Amino acid sequence: MADLQARLAALNAEYARAIDDDRLEEWPGFFLARCLYKITTADNVKQGYQAGLVYADSRAMLQDRVSALREANVYERQRYRHILGAPALLSDGVLETAFLVVRIMRDGKMDLFATGRYLDRVSEEENSLKYAERIVICDSSRFDTLLAIPL
Amino acid sequence: MADLQARLAALNAEYARAIDDDRLEEWPGFFLARCLYKITTADNVKQGYQAGLVYADSRAMLQDRVSALREANVYERQRYRHILGAPALLSDGVLETAFLVVRIMRDGKMDLFATGRYLDRVSEEENSLKYAERIVICDSSRFDTLLAIPL
Amino acid sequence: MADLQARLAALNAEYARAIDDDRLEEWPGFFLARCLYKITTADNVKQGYQAGLVYADSRAMLQDRVSALREANVYERQRYRHILGAPALLSDGVLETAFLVVRIMRDGKMDLFATGRYLDRVSEEENSLKYAERIVICDSSRFDTLLAIPL
Repeated sequence: MADLQARLAALNAEYARAIDDDRLEEWPGFFLARCLYKITTADNVKQGYQAGLVYADSRAMLQDRVSALREANVYERQRYRHILGAPALLSDGVLETAFLVVRIMRDGKMDLFATGRYLDRVSEEENSLKYAERIVICDSSRFDTLLAIPL
Repeated sequence: MADLQARLAALNAEYARAIDDDRLEEWPGFFLARCLYKITTADNVKQGYQAGLVYADSRAMLQDRVSALREANVYERQRYRHILGAPALLSDGVLETAFLVVRIMRDGKMDLFATGRYLDRVSEEENSLKYAERIVICDSSRFDTLLAIPL
Repeated sequence: MADLQARLAALNAEYARAIDDDRLEEWPGFFLARCLYKITTADNVKQGYQAGLVYADSRAMLQDRVSALREANVYERQRYRHILGAPALLSDGVLETAFLVVRIMRDGKMDLFATGRYLDRVSEEENSLKYAERIVICDSSRFDTLLAIPL
């Protein structure tokens, strides 16, 4: 695997750990100050819709989103576990990584929460790799999945 | 990880993307013109049965299979998502990779579609790595899983 | 990915294969003779409980555990499939890897058996990498999961 893919795999692993450990406040720090983060669905992409169900174009907006999630408090009752594939380097410089997220309820019940793929552009900032752009394309179009936690 | 394993991980990621993006026509191109592709089950392997539930020994047969799937049209109603492990290099030169496939129905419902392992032999063709042999051993013996899409 | 992480990814893949192939007798050999193996839950970790639901501090104890599992014979009726993420190197030298285990029943039914993370310390023994310490932190607290097979 090329060096960039290996470095992205490491970044992806850190990103997933931050969410799964409920360290959401660290999540915006994985992005550049000026960035693009969007959650959309495979159906929306297929139909050419540009708008995301979640959209942010700066780290500050991501921080606001974390604050809103903390106030809504919805994610406290369950855990999440991301399992990620190996990144593929596409011809346009975008990196694609398959993901699966399992949700673990307080009573121990587990279910498939989301699957899909990340389309990433990355860039260096202060000697560490950050996401300049992360488009999260969910395979399913269920709304609860898209709005509960960062994906 | 040795270079071969890293290259197979990249090939595996491309292979999975082609299926999950519904670019089935590209799937035969991941194999040598003379190749072996077989889907079987862990129970069949344990009992020493050589026959696969799906069997092809050339790229042309794989192309026929894609045509048949396109005509049957069964895969249009759902999506699939492959999540793959890291390849392990076995003593006989075979590479083994664990896989999990989630199926996403049109209504957004997700379920575990298949799990198992790939046993691969790879070879260079025109400077790119291809599968000379891919044996897909499903953990479960459910037939619908084995016949719906390439695994 | 740094060399250590790549080597751990390879070790993790072999470890998972041994369990999923039902070669449990090989499982203790992945550990140093003096080692720590513990299965606990995210809730227990959060509450500061040190005790594990499964605990062993030597390879011999792991061998005893395999013998007990073989006698209880509970794992014969189903298969398991581990899907692992890429290892992350933490600041204290511990390596963390996300895992997901699917259980495949004899009738072909599949379910999510366990998710969580491994916290590993590794060391060389006779030119091969072994686990000096493996703490398995399950996201769920269901007991059947923790006691059925090595995780």
